Amino acid sequence: MRNKLKIINDPVYGFINIPSELQFHIIEHPYFQRLRRIKQLGLSYFVYPGTTHTRFEHVLGAMHLMSNALHELSKKGQTIAEDEKQSALSAILLHDIGHGPFSHTLEGTFFKTLTHEDLTLLFMKSINEEFKGELDQTIQVFQNNHPKKFLHSLVSGQLDMDRLDYLKRDSFYSGVNEGEIGSERIIKMLRVVNNELAIEEKGIYSVEQFIIARRIMYWQVYLHKTVIVADEMLKRAIRRATVLSKNVQVFSTPVLSRFINEQITDNSIKESKEKLKKALDAFAELDDSDIIVSLKEWAKHPDTVLSELSRGILNRNLFKIEISHEKFPIEKINRIKQKVKEKYKITDEDTDFLVFTDIIKNKAYSTENDTGINILLNSGKISDIAEASDLSNINTLTATVEKYFLSYPKKLNF
Amino acid sequence: MRNKLKIINDPVYGFINIPSELQFHIIEHPYFQRLRRIKQLGLSYFVYPGTTHTRFEHVLGAMHLMSNALHELSKKGQTIAEDEKQSALSAILLHDIGHGPFSHTLEGTFFKTLTHEDLTLLFMKSINEEFKGELDQTIQVFQNNHPKKFLHSLVSGQLDMDRLDYLKRDSFYSGVNEGEIGSERIIKMLRVVNNELAIEEKGIYSVEQFIIARRIMYWQVYLHKTVIVADEMLKRAIRRATVLSKNVQVFSTPVLSRFINEQITDNSIKESKEKLKKALDAFAELDDSDIIVSLKEWAKHPDTVLSELSRGILNRNLFKIEISHEKFPIEKINRIKQKVKEKYKITDEDTDFLVFTDIIKNKAYSTENDTGINILLNSGKISDIAEASDLSNINTLTATVEKYFLSYPKKLNF
Amino acid sequence: MRNKLKIINDPVYGFINIPSELQFHIIEHPYFQRLRRIKQLGLSYFVYPGTTHTRFEHVLGAMHLMSNALHELSKKGQTIAEDEKQSALSAILLHDIGHGPFSHTLEGTFFKTLTHEDLTLLFMKSINEEFKGELDQTIQVFQNNHPKKFLHSLVSGQLDMDRLDYLKRDSFYSGVNEGEIGSERIIKMLRVVNNELAIEEKGIYSVEQFIIARRIMYWQVYLHKTVIVADEMLKRAIRRATVLSKNVQVFSTPVLSRFINEQITDNSIKESKEKLKKALDAFAELDDSDIIVSLKEWAKHPDTVLSELSRGILNRNLFKIEISHEKFPIEKINRIKQKVKEKYKITDEDTDFLVFTDIIKNKAYSTENDTGINILLNSGKISDIAEASDLSNINTLTATVEKYFLSYPKKLNF
Amino acid sequence: MRNKLKIINDPVYGFINIPSELQFHIIEHPYFQRLRRIKQLGLSYFVYPGTTHTRFEHVLGAMHLMSNALHELSKKGQTIAEDEKQSALSAILLHDIGHGPFSHTLEGTFFKTLTHEDLTLLFMKSINEEFKGELDQTIQVFQNNHPKKFLHSLVSGQLDMDRLDYLKRDSFYSGVNEGEIGSERIIKMLRVVNNELAIEEKGIYSVEQFIIARRIMYWQVYLHKTVIVADEMLKRAIRRATVLSKNVQVFSTPVLSRFINEQITDNSIKESKEKLKKALDAFAELDDSDIIVSLKEWAKHPDTVLSELSRGILNRNLFKIEISHEKFPIEKINRIKQKVKEKYKITDEDTDFLVFTDIIKNKAYSTENDTGINILLNSGKISDIAEASDLSNINTLTATVEKYFLSYPKKLNF
Repeated sequence: MRNKLKIINDPVYGFINIPSELQFHIIEHPYFQRLRRIKQLGLSYFVYPGTTHTRFEHVLGAMHLMSNALHELSKKGQTIAEDEKQSALSAILLHDIGHGPFSHTLEGTFFKTLTHEDLTLLFMKSINEEFKGELDQTIQVFQNNHPKKFLHSLVSGQLDMDRLDYLKRDSFYSGVNEGEIGSERIIKMLRVVNNELAIEEKGIYSVEQFIIARRIMYWQVYLHKTVIVADEMLKRAIRRATVLSKNVQVFSTPVLSRFINEQITDNSIKESKEKLKKALDAFAELDDSDIIVSLKEWAKHPDTVLSELSRGILNRNLFKIEISHEKFPIEKINRIKQKVKEKYKITDEDTDFLVFTDIIKNKAYSTENDTGINILLNSGKISDIAEASDLSNINTLTATVEKYFLSYPKKLNF
Repeated sequence: MRNKLKIINDPVYGFINIPSELQFHIIEHPYFQRLRRIKQLGLSYFVYPGTTHTRFEHVLGAMHLMSNALHELSKKGQTIAEDEKQSALSAILLHDIGHGPFSHTLEGTFFKTLTHEDLTLLFMKSINEEFKGELDQTIQVFQNNHPKKFLHSLVSGQLDMDRLDYLKRDSFYSGVNEGEIGSERIIKMLRVVNNELAIEEKGIYSVEQFIIARRIMYWQVYLHKTVIVADEMLKRAIRRATVLSKNVQVFSTPVLSRFINEQITDNSIKESKEKLKKALDAFAELDDSDIIVSLKEWAKHPDTVLSELSRGILNRNLFKIEISHEKFPIEKINRIKQKVKEKYKITDEDTDFLVFTDIIKNKAYSTENDTGINILLNSGKISDIAEASDLSNINTLTATVEKYFLSYPKKLNF
Repeated sequence: MRNKLKIINDPVYGFINIPSELQFHIIEHPYFQRLRRIKQLGLSYFVYPGTTHTRFEHVLGAMHLMSNALHELSKKGQTIAEDEKQSALSAILLHDIGHGPFSHTLEGTFFKTLTHEDLTLLFMKSINEEFKGELDQTIQVFQNNHPKKFLHSLVSGQLDMDRLDYLKRDSFYSGVNEGEIGSERIIKMLRVVNNELAIEEKGIYSVEQFIIARRIMYWQVYLHKTVIVADEMLKRAIRRATVLSKNVQVFSTPVLSRFINEQITDNSIKESKEKLKKALDAFAELDDSDIIVSLKEWAKHPDTVLSELSRGILNRNLFKIEISHEKFPIEKINRIKQKVKEKYKITDEDTDFLVFTDIIKNKAYSTENDTGINILLNSGKISDIAEASDLSNINTLTATVEKYFLSYPKKLNF
Repeated sequence: MRNKLKIINDPVYGFINIPSELQFHIIEHPYFQRLRRIKQLGLSYFVYPGTTHTRFEHVLGAMHLMSNALHELSKKGQTIAEDEKQSALSAILLHDIGHGPFSHTLEGTFFKTLTHEDLTLLFMKSINEEFKGELDQTIQVFQNNHPKKFLHSLVSGQLDMDRLDYLKRDSFYSGVNEGEIGSERIIKMLRVVNNELAIEEKGIYSVEQFIIARRIMYWQVYLHKTVIVADEMLKRAIRRATVLSKNVQVFSTPVLSRFINEQITDNSIKESKEKLKKALDAFAELDDSDIIVSLKEWAKHPDTVLSELSRGILNRNLFKIEISHEKFPIEKINRIKQKVKEKYKITDEDTDFLVFTDIIKNKAYSTENDTGINILLNSGKISDIAEASDLSNINTLTATVEKYFLSYPKKLNF
């Protein structure tokens, strides 16, 4: 047992303690160890070379913060039973287990309709079976079926331990220090009121700073235009390989090929319990390295579109990307497509893989507008941050912003 | 000369180089060395024990940033002659030399009408005389009389080196890490357009974060309610000593007594050149230690009001402070005054020293609304941050916020 | 009570919790608040401008580490009763309360034979009386009379919380990052074996690094030659004022004058209980500010020796200092003395105040050689670090090193 | 050109400037971009999850320090022509380009006799051909054929920019803060004397700390026993796959298979210029991802030895490892081998893949004893650190330490 309570070195918090045996066993599980091979921020290391950190580190960090938050709330008189603590700790540890290669980058690529949250739930249930129901309550917390609603909010909510960790951690590794948030200060100000999380009034400024720091991290890091173009090129390379492989020989790693050849799809998951288990096992084998290895072969493939995209990613020879607040005029897009078509001698259909436009949203906000952040006023009343803050319109900070991008190969000689 | 170009250890930036002999001589001047004895943040160490750092460090840090900024602008093609660089460096080094004990806390206490900027100018001129005009251009820059207007903006403007240093430094020493700004990133994005400073478009988010970080530092640190009450008690202790000393024996340090006894006032400065020089010399001798030593004697003075205030500050046994968005009702104030009057057996007039109410403004903003922050759009156009930012109403972030406080001795047994 | 368990912001550890009411009351005591006015590192801010931090912060930090260490040892199965924890926490909080102005700089100046540890004990006993014996066990721990010897070792020993804090803290404020030690890692590796502290075997390298970091901090910071000369000038200024004041008028602050005029000496403490209390109260009023204010007057005193020394310190116009591994030849010293005597037109006796030589030892080590650092080998055996380390002669790292310095006014025109 | 001088975000130094176009073109080269896919510290992320940083970041960091060092030396009067600066900058940028997957871990695996330095030179020459001789002088510096010997020392020597970066960087990512070195301080103290690098006398303590920090990083991180066992398992898995593939079908990624099937060996490089180019291109395609993908298939291979090793690495289910200062007794080893043989039902020969013992040396030191670190004494004389330091036997700090390890599968039920 001694060994199971060991300490993990973490550059962000110094040391992370594994709180109990249950978490130790989760961490040991191959489904979990896989997170070591999945970068937290997809291809953002093309812009911020330090961001090669993994989902593995992030969930350990989030567990560390959860441990602090539970300790803090208990100290302030909130009753949380030992098994409830275990559930919250396990839920945050497992909350990202459904992520695939390069995290958000390839979401929607291997399973069209299943989100990473859906997959997380499927993985949790699968591990729970192995663990003979030990995770029943963990799943309750994750799905917000637990009577102590605030436990779910700590896992997934406006100020959950997920965000408190990732903003701090991504800021650390990117070197964008001004995106650093006061995770510890916010945790010190947590309270539970009427079964909901709230922040003490004096924490208003920390919450405001949290909102703006998230904003800076979105536009400076997560949605940096170079990251956008790299992500889009990667998605298109995989789609191209999928399409091509119906007719010609296209190498993929054994694990990836099952997805490229569409042996495993959203449907496999629904058909039968065995198929589901098989699909999960297959997905659990997939990680960043399958993509990289496949790209290296694709870069040598005779198909110009596939090789152009793949080589571009591997050698960081990325397409040009333009950003605009308005939609790009169709004439401009067509003019570029024509150029590309001529240069590469490809069909119209193929050209769509090399010239593309879309909308970028700082999506993370949109869903968050549903629930506000509760402030516990000194008077004892609960107020929404939007009202409690002097910033009469803090909502504008969290509004969804939409921008358009247009991307295409460099050196078109206009 | 070797020795004069030496390197100073700084916990914020690592190393600070003294750029040239002129700055070395300024730093050696007793008027300047005095800044070692003046805390940057007054009494804020009552809340943030780490904030015992001095004006001395701050101005060295600001000079370091100025050096980086000038280097950056030159690299981008802006012509700045060597003597202009020297002037900008000397101007930022001297910009705070007019500060008195505990910096902002006691502004308006020793000279009623002269601000620390006024005093800075007087000190600059005095040193310039000693330096035989070597600081002529420095003074031009400081007073915004230099044709290269942007040099003045680097010393005093929306994004001057003063702010870029103090926000970073105060955040560092207070431990309020979320107030950290991206000084270096902002400097990398500086440009001069039409003789004015501007920030490249991709720097918008850094500027937004700078604005919100300043906000958090104001409310969390500079205007923390415990700091407010300590500041107010100190101002009242000095005023009380001044009043008392007209009739009874009140010890002050030799240097302070010249101000307490009103031998030196705003008028002394205007009367004659000798009197001015004498006043400056006197003020240059005054520092935090005079206040502390005097407080220690005042704490033992028979006058209850003086001793109560002084003991409270020394032992951090501060008055109670209430904060409100509205004015406190006169009845409430009177009720408290009555209690205090009875408890301390003092006159109505004396009670006003122990029960006080006033308004707090995050003043720093108000003046700043005059000039905006220029953003150099990718299109080449200049736009104000308020327009360039997605935050439709970034102005609300910089609006002056007013709060009221009411303060009085503890343990009144209501 | 709520308020008493409050949290203190600390730039080194983030947040420090006050563990219980007893510590809160100690912190509130005026004897303790005084530590806010005593710089941790004397005059080292002349070299490292960031080192204006105080004893107050240091003891809070050491208490924080003690809290972590006690938690860690308990987790590993060592029984420590609640009252024993309280005693260890209070002992570390109070361990430096006997320090006078500028900490080590002026040790031996106001009381000739009493060390700061002696004074600490006297202050502890005095507070204990006020606290009606609540500190009985605390004093036991401090004096190493408590049966759980390891509690004393945590307060004062090879790897006590005092050192673990000050090395980390002084490294932080000086900017000498390479002097940073792994305080948290060392604490995680603490064990109690046979009532003594030991470090688990895997901690050997951290202990080695701790020893070398201490070494770097000694020579780079604590014993930096510029700090040495400033310290020595200050001691001599005070001695000069003491000597002079027997014959002529010399201003000192009211508090300091009682020491300068020798109203309070080592003897006062021994004579009677009242005199002891009076002496402690007087010493408790003394802080850095008394020295600074007095220096400002001394700088204007007609006595050349006093004014020369005082002005030099105030304006950081320090004497020249030479360092050597050997004693300086008497002829050289005499030659310099002659020059100084002539230049200042002073007596031989007075010259000794301006030309001085002495030995510097990294004293802190000498006493430490008594007890070694216990390593708990994986085999279960206890071994001294000197044997357990691959560094066959780690002792050389801790040996007392002696250097000589010779100091005298600049600009002697040799 | 504007774009080519861009700035890279780095969490360790903040910002890194690409000094000139030549470096920009090197960084753009696919051989160089490949370093993004090679972890700096092999499998150490099994112990320090933060250490997923890459060779790419390290060489950029080393280039940044080189830039500072050249600036510092120039400032001190050392003549360094612009083309010499370019060469030193390019040499440090390219010095690690010969590293293969997982850096040091697999050195000697794909090419038996060629070290990564040999490969670096081959890559440099190949790029130089492409660059039409632009790297002639760079290669001179790298090979120590340049008349300014100190340029080579900055690339490869006792205190080269390589070490100054990697110690700082690896300490940062591992969270072993006490291994942090004062890179910037050491650089500030560099001097060139007689065409050799030296450190100013006051830098002695920084050098001592550098030596001890390297020591702590070796034993705490680089040679951590868990890292050792993971490394050894990986090497054996690859060897096993190589052996097996002679007889049975063993999947490897297309790139790796050329090495596993021994199409490319040390010999290919010597045979002809075409074969050399082909071998380099093949090696340049190889990275961490090939190993991971292959391990995932090997984990499912019917060969027990291969699958046991591969699964162990993937799921961090590592073998037990014992460390000793003495050789392990042959009887003990044989007893374990017998157990393993029985448990896995394998031959004696196969057992050697699962039970292994070897020696660990902190190798990095051994070669370094050749040349010392020059200290430029205040007297103007040059002395070796071993003499200049008070540490009479600093050499013991750098002596090669040898330890033995014995490793075998867990759960053998002794």
